[in-house]
Amino acid sequence: MTEGARVVIVGGGFGGLTCAKQLTDKNLNVTLVDRHNHHLFQPLLYQVAMAGLAPSEIAVPIRSILRKQRNTTVLLAEVVGIDMVNKRVKLAQTQDLPYDYLVLAPGARTHYFGHDDWAHYAPGLKSIDDAVEIRRRVLLAFEAAERETDPAERARLLSFVVIGGGPTGVEMAGAIAELGRYVLSRDFRRVRPSETRVLLIEGGARVLSTFHEELSEKTVVQLSELGVQVRTGTVVESIDVNGVKLRSGEVISASTILWAAGVSSSPLLQTLGIELDRAGRAKVEKDCSLPGHREVFVIGDASYLLGDDGNPLPGVSPTAMQMGRHVASIIRGELAQGAGATAAREPFRYRDKGSMATIGRSRAIAEMGNLRLSGFLAWLAWLVVHVFYLIGFRNRFAVVVDWAWSYFTFRRGARLITGGRMEPGPPESVSHAQPKTTRLSTSTAEAAEGARTG
Amino acid sequence: MTEGARVVIVGGGFGGLTCAKQLTDKNLNVTLVDRHNHHLFQPLLYQVAMAGLAPSEIAVPIRSILRKQRNTTVLLAEVVGIDMVNKRVKLAQTQDLPYDYLVLAPGARTHYFGHDDWAHYAPGLKSIDDAVEIRRRVLLAFEAAERETDPAERARLLSFVVIGGGPTGVEMAGAIAELGRYVLSRDFRRVRPSETRVLLIEGGARVLSTFHEELSEKTVVQLSELGVQVRTGTVVESIDVNGVKLRSGEVISASTILWAAGVSSSPLLQTLGIELDRAGRAKVEKDCSLPGHREVFVIGDASYLLGDDGNPLPGVSPTAMQMGRHVASIIRGELAQGAGATAAREPFRYRDKGSMATIGRSRAIAEMGNLRLSGFLAWLAWLVVHVFYLIGFRNRFAVVVDWAWSYFTFRRGARLITGGRMEPGPPESVSHAQPKTTRLSTSTAEAAEGARTG
Repeated sequence: MTEGARVVIVGGGFGGLTCAKQLTDKNLNVTLVDRHNHHLFQPLLYQVAMAGLAPSEIAVPIRSILRKQRNTTVLLAEVVGIDMVNKRVKLAQTQDLPYDYLVLAPGARTHYFGHDDWAHYAPGLKSIDDAVEIRRRVLLAFEAAERETDPAERARLLSFVVIGGGPTGVEMAGAIAELGRYVLSRDFRRVRPSETRVLLIEGGARVLSTFHEELSEKTVVQLSELGVQVRTGTVVESIDVNGVKLRSGEVISASTILWAAGVSSSPLLQTLGIELDRAGRAKVEKDCSLPGHREVFVIGDASYLLGDDGNPLPGVSPTAMQMGRHVASIIRGELAQGAGATAAREPFRYRDKGSMATIGRSRAIAEMGNLRLSGFLAWLAWLVVHVFYLIGFRNRFAVVVDWAWSYFTFRRGARLITGGRMEPGPPESVSHAQPKTTRLSTSTAEAAEGARTG
Repeated sequence: MTEGARVVIVGGGFGGLTCAKQLTDKNLNVTLVDRHNHHLFQPLLYQVAMAGLAPSEIAVPIRSILRKQRNTTVLLAEVVGIDMVNKRVKLAQTQDLPYDYLVLAPGARTHYFGHDDWAHYAPGLKSIDDAVEIRRRVLLAFEAAERETDPAERARLLSFVVIGGGPTGVEMAGAIAELGRYVLSRDFRRVRPSETRVLLIEGGARVLSTFHEELSEKTVVQLSELGVQVRTGTVVESIDVNGVKLRSGEVISASTILWAAGVSSSPLLQTLGIELDRAGRAKVEKDCSLPGHREVFVIGDASYLLGDDGNPLPGVSPTAMQMGRHVASIIRGELAQGAGATAAREPFRYRDKGSMATIGRSRAIAEMGNLRLSGFLAWLAWLVVHVFYLIGFRNRFAVVVDWAWSYFTFRRGARLITGGRMEPGPPESVSHAQPKTTRLSTSTAEAAEGARTG
């Protein structure tokens, strides 16, 4: 144990981990707490859900990443509360952690806008467990179709609905269509690729609404080439075991429904008595600290801060990483100045390096300032960026090998069905991983229209 | 669909899959049924349990392996019964499968000798789900120890008991000791490798009792070098949440208990009204068929057949594969002869190519006829053989890369904790995967002494 100022970081995602990696000073005593033992490269999580990558290829143990940072302790534990008066983090599994600085980076979770029961029928994609569950449902739907002789039931089994037209929804819809059309079709004797039906439902006027309109259109074209039907301006009324009921009254019968329509912040923030926005994010000062608590920062998806353009900063990994670096530099600066440093702090400035979304094999879109790409070139850019940012040489190598393998052979390496049950769709009883509780009160699916998507 | 004789194979393990791969004749209509969608390379399953390999590296979708064999259909389904009079296999999920030939290769499962409640506290290692559960328990024990301040509780958390001194028990015990000593120790701040305690308990007089005595002794030496305490002639009286109680009255307090002391055959065989041995295996004729049912074969771990030396053939993969090939050749031969072939059949002859067991990094034993190896050379032989027999080029490549990586860096790529819960040891309520039911009646742990181990 090193002596010195105590920094507690809650969350080992992009924001928390980046912050921890900057805090190498010997006079800092850093503790990173997370509910999972691994940092997750979330941009590739849909690949696990679609059997393209193995979970361990995009997840690395946090303590393995920070092993050489001797001033840093990693704890697998659940934060159950924070005593901001006495500056202590309360953990479910062990003693309180006192802090001088606290960095909250708890991330976001799937949010059903008051319809938590939908979680059972339409899982979201935020964790490895989510991805493995989605993989199980998708692969089992094809297996059940292969056994099925009734054409109507087979059509239902081969119908997949993805709700939410943000990057995650687009990626999942494209990947399912590809799976049916190119990957699985050659392994089955009765299922034909043309039977696979993928619907992407978006409440708003267009998919990928944070991108330029031109790219939204190109996305729809590329999705259509893969056989995905895109329905914009379509609001979900309810979801149950039979499928999806739309506001229009239409019922879409499908065995597999996936939710990518909204996220909200960690419930932890609701226990702090601080001001939150509608999605449960903490409204922070320009330096990312909480109003009235200079020693507490909230970063990443859990924070709400307006950018130079007057819009809230996007809930993407670059925001979280830049915030993590910014907060680490504030902490290090103040420690260098000595106790009681009260100098004005540098405000956080988000540098938008562009964004991209992948649609499928050789298909993607990318936007960097005024530069807009789509198709193969965008896909190549997407691939390079995502491999580059993966943590750990071994993982980068493994992912490149896996992609090259599946690109040239049309086969996928991680097509495992695990978890015991053999029927597609939701489990008969609600499993421990589903549904996620959220205490937000927004109550109609319409809210999904404006929500951030993962 | 091809016309012709209908062959149904139950089980896609080494025996069933090998048999299916031989039955390529166009006038055969082959259906392979399995409860899992993947063939599992069981000899490396302990590596998944010990976070060395990812599940998808040792499991390949069965339909992917057989994709090019157009006369063969793969069904993911559960066999609930067999009507041997009308020659139909009954499935839980879809219509009956009529057969002309039936090959039963349902394998073995973990067996607790009448103590099914032990499954909750001491999981066995037969499936990917088992391996992931064991990985979760082992990794969580280290995580909990890192949080723990009470020395007695920390000692309990870092105590691991492996019951059963066959190849699987030896492999698991060696791998846990290595994990604590070399892999995890550098990642933790409070846990010290010397604190990790691994006990291997064997009811019989020596570990690896199917090998030459000299190799049993060398195994104990190599295990001791890794810090594993081996206790032979030690019988388990009971297992519960506190740990393991021995026949001697001694109680071993441990957070993690693993079962490698016995297997029994699939319960399916008990529904057939045929003669079984004590471990539930079907007594077969010399050609592997059931007495009175020339068209039904039982192969692999599920069959009981005496070898040339008068001992039952060992429950290992070469036996299963050789039987699969033998049965396929009988079926093909009789079809070539035309309907009503009643010629005498060739008896099955097991060719023992030797056997080996790995103990840890650079440590193993091997026995081929009179040649006995131990140490690095045996380990190299073990590695070459196991990589060679892995199905799929991609998997071989991935496994070699992973092994080289962890050999030189002492790091492991698959150290994921998944499944939601955060406490080590058994789940609070019995999960759906545990315990396995078995209807055998052997009722004391003593029976474990003579049982086959995995």
